Amino acid sequence: MRVEIWSDITCPWCYVAQARFEKALAAFPHREAVEVVHKSFELEPGRGKADVEPIIKVLMRGKGWSEAQALANEKNLTRQSAGEGLPYVQGRDHGGTFDIHRLLHFAKAQGRQHELVGLLYRANFAEERSLFNDDERLVELAVEAGLDAGAARAVLADPKAYAEDVRADEREAAQLGAQGVPFFVFDRTYGVSGAQPVDAFSRALAQAWGNRSPLQVVGSGAGGHVCGPDGCPVPH
Amino acid sequence: MRVEIWSDITCPWCYVAQARFEKALAAFPHREAVEVVHKSFELEPGRGKADVEPIIKVLMRGKGWSEAQALANEKNLTRQSAGEGLPYVQGRDHGGTFDIHRLLHFAKAQGRQHELVGLLYRANFAEERSLFNDDERLVELAVEAGLDAGAARAVLADPKAYAEDVRADEREAAQLGAQGVPFFVFDRTYGVSGAQPVDAFSRALAQAWGNRSPLQVVGSGAGGHVCGPDGCPVPH
Repeated sequence: MRVEIWSDITCPWCYVAQARFEKALAAFPHREAVEVVHKSFELEPGRGKADVEPIIKVLMRGKGWSEAQALANEKNLTRQSAGEGLPYVQGRDHGGTFDIHRLLHFAKAQGRQHELVGLLYRANFAEERSLFNDDERLVELAVEAGLDAGAARAVLADPKAYAEDVRADEREAAQLGAQGVPFFVFDRTYGVSGAQPVDAFSRALAQAWGNRSPLQVVGSGAGGHVCGPDGCPVPH
Repeated sequence: MRVEIWSDITCPWCYVAQARFEKALAAFPHREAVEVVHKSFELEPGRGKADVEPIIKVLMRGKGWSEAQALANEKNLTRQSAGEGLPYVQGRDHGGTFDIHRLLHFAKAQGRQHELVGLLYRANFAEERSLFNDDERLVELAVEAGLDAGAARAVLADPKAYAEDVRADEREAAQLGAQGVPFFVFDRTYGVSGAQPVDAFSRALAQAWGNRSPLQVVGSGAGGHVCGPDGCPVPH
């Protein structure tokens, strides 16, 4: 069974939902058979790498809020995160995430995506130091996730590396009807939109598990010619 | 709609089936909505990169055939390929394909996988020059597919690059019950095993299209909190 999670590292509800999903998964009896794949979704696709601002300013301008209102919003997110046992540092930076998504695809190719997602959330929401417009900070996190520093640096330096993977994920999200994140998709059958309670994730896991259907295969008997471990039988 | 194709570049039935599938796809009215993904399957997972032999010798040893029988088998494959309008040079080399699969994953990340698959089939089955144990030949094909020579060379030189992607594809094939290739999977619902006639692929496309079901989404109304283009609403 496969669970795909569209998210963005700047999305606080993704941070909270990831923790809730992980609780549901830890309690799911068939968790060993669940493959989790992280998919790209930029909250601000047009935002450049160097376009970094304090989240407070982003909220004030974007929402027309006073500074006090923006700070109250941050306090609220602190409380919501604490409800899942997650630390939250108020007043983080906000920036473009295209390179971060590219790095996550590199991590996926090396079997380290899950580790890197967790470290990126922690770095963005729970640490004072900004991870935006700072490739060396991203390289440090990549190394902490078990990746090679030189290879991670090369990916960050090449704007085309894994770029198509990021865009393909974003096209898929649109096709599936996601208008925001987090967006969880279970075996392409059930979706969970938003930071739902742990129970909602548990139910989606159980439902998707119950509805697994074996592939209907045409030609598994005679019929089409197949190459296998014993070669490629050819009719004479 | 997504079609996943497990295959190996050394598999003549994959070469034939790819052409048949492409005919079915070209005639499919919703072809623009079909995403095709190539997945890795090594016919001989243990075979090393430098372990290259003429296919005639491989067949003689593997099947206990005389040279005449092995040559007759090649003639037959020539006829089968010609039936799809495909050239086939008798007496190709045979070798390990792990690096070729890694390169195909790199091409996928750059949006060039389909181009590279076609060029690899042509190079292996329709050209005199062997593509085994010859990284520069693979780099030439990668460049012809629109990839960067230096980046392709770096992937081939690093045995870990995209290795996990290859293994993940192979695990998935086993989970789906594939015992050989080609193995086509339509939206994880219908499978087509082997080089079936064009009609079988057309039927699978039509069936899978007819059975597309919209995702059942929990929480698309109120409920879970979502970050979207307008930010991340937080309850007060």
